[in-house]
Amino acid sequence: MTKQELFENIKRKKSFLCVGLDTDVTKIPEHLFEMSDDPIFDFNKAIIDATADFCVAYKPNLAFYESLGLSGWDILERTVDYIRDNYPDQFIIADAKRGDIGNTSAMYARTFFGNMEFDSVTVAPYMGEDSVSPFLSYEGKWVTLLALTSNKGAFDFQFMKDEETGERLFEKVLKTSLKWGDADNMMYVVGATKAEMLGDIRKIVPDHFLLVPGVGAQGGSLAEVVKYGMNAECGLIVNSSRQIIYADSSEDFAHAARIEAQKMQAEMAEYLRN
Amino acid sequence: MTKQELFENIKRKKSFLCVGLDTDVTKIPEHLFEMSDDPIFDFNKAIIDATADFCVAYKPNLAFYESLGLSGWDILERTVDYIRDNYPDQFIIADAKRGDIGNTSAMYARTFFGNMEFDSVTVAPYMGEDSVSPFLSYEGKWVTLLALTSNKGAFDFQFMKDEETGERLFEKVLKTSLKWGDADNMMYVVGATKAEMLGDIRKIVPDHFLLVPGVGAQGGSLAEVVKYGMNAECGLIVNSSRQIIYADSSEDFAHAARIEAQKMQAEMAEYLRN
Repeated sequence: MTKQELFENIKRKKSFLCVGLDTDVTKIPEHLFEMSDDPIFDFNKAIIDATADFCVAYKPNLAFYESLGLSGWDILERTVDYIRDNYPDQFIIADAKRGDIGNTSAMYARTFFGNMEFDSVTVAPYMGEDSVSPFLSYEGKWVTLLALTSNKGAFDFQFMKDEETGERLFEKVLKTSLKWGDADNMMYVVGATKAEMLGDIRKIVPDHFLLVPGVGAQGGSLAEVVKYGMNAECGLIVNSSRQIIYADSSEDFAHAARIEAQKMQAEMAEYLRN
Repeated sequence: MTKQELFENIKRKKSFLCVGLDTDVTKIPEHLFEMSDDPIFDFNKAIIDATADFCVAYKPNLAFYESLGLSGWDILERTVDYIRDNYPDQFIIADAKRGDIGNTSAMYARTFFGNMEFDSVTVAPYMGEDSVSPFLSYEGKWVTLLALTSNKGAFDFQFMKDEETGERLFEKVLKTSLKWGDADNMMYVVGATKAEMLGDIRKIVPDHFLLVPGVGAQGGSLAEVVKYGMNAECGLIVNSSRQIIYADSSEDFAHAARIEAQKMQAEMAEYLRN
């Protein structure tokens, strides 16, 4: 998907919502295990069908699928196929936090872009350029690079200041990575819990899309994210996982997820109008 | 496995070699595809049987298995089981470079330590403490944290100097992580291609084991690694992947791998004697 196509989808759907498919076998409604031989996939399918009108992206979190072993990978592959086949305008992000030496990152890129039809993969920057560039060699695919994450541990290293330039590590990651790709194939993870940093980040990457986790369960505010992070082409994909997909654990779970997604979309529509 | 048990294995086998199972479907001997219905697993099995006498650890590289989809995960699981069942004294490292917010890292930890019987997982430090600590909650299991990697991209961020302390990022990672675990449940990745840094690293982590990739195909020298990195309890696990497992592509591939592993073990035995 191109940046322009993503922006067109955002305008048409009046939404920049990403639904995080952090599907946890211990949290999905119990009745699914009685009703279905394939409860985890059926949960995903129901959530996707219920929310697709109100979001522009889905983000399966790889850890949740890997933790189920073989059947988890099977469910992941079928989930991606289901979105592709039924909602081809959705941007699909593998939240995998990969990154390794060049020949190994090339293998990861093949997994997510060659074997599966993801549009993007989250990549950790610690190992530098050759750990990221193999993901950029696929036409129409994106790297979503970790810059400033939403968790407490972000303060351990990401705010370290460079002796020479005074830049913080997350700023150095942004600046350095501008040499690797551009706003048409890279976006950055910036946690909503650190929304006040978005102003500084926009000075370095005014045109790039930012993937913003941490609204909702982690405590970030959508209004703050928009205030500091939105640009002329929106430039934001805001993720919500738990608040939407676990909105309710009864048989009405999908409807409850739809209501939550719609609420966020309605708020986003207001921000897009301004 | 405890640190003491690992050191006992090293002394008994006179080896601190780790064989990297970067099993690439495009590089394994062609005859295996004619002879076997399960060529990739059979390749691993033959390599393991041929080299187990001369190494103390195996390190499957997750990217190579993931790139094969479902069958790759199946092969990975069976490979780990095969090592566990037949060579219970081997230390098995999932080279996965994982790391995410706490609830997600907990899922990764469950995958590698709960579902599969790995002894350790490689973890990327960018997201800080809560991305690492879930892996440390498993008794007898280890985190292998990235400190100074063997690739060119290591120079992009890992050498950035802290404005306050003058520490380089990899040194800050070492120091900070000393608060998260100890020499009995953490080791560090330090690339052989930067062996001269091992002296500085040993000042911060004198007692920890270091996992050293980059000897062989990537150009690092074992003599240099030992000179700067060995401590009183060895403190080194040196990985070799391609140089051993792809030593030969004929029907004699396993024997050729054995010869390469034995060569490295013989050199290691000399260093351990001194």
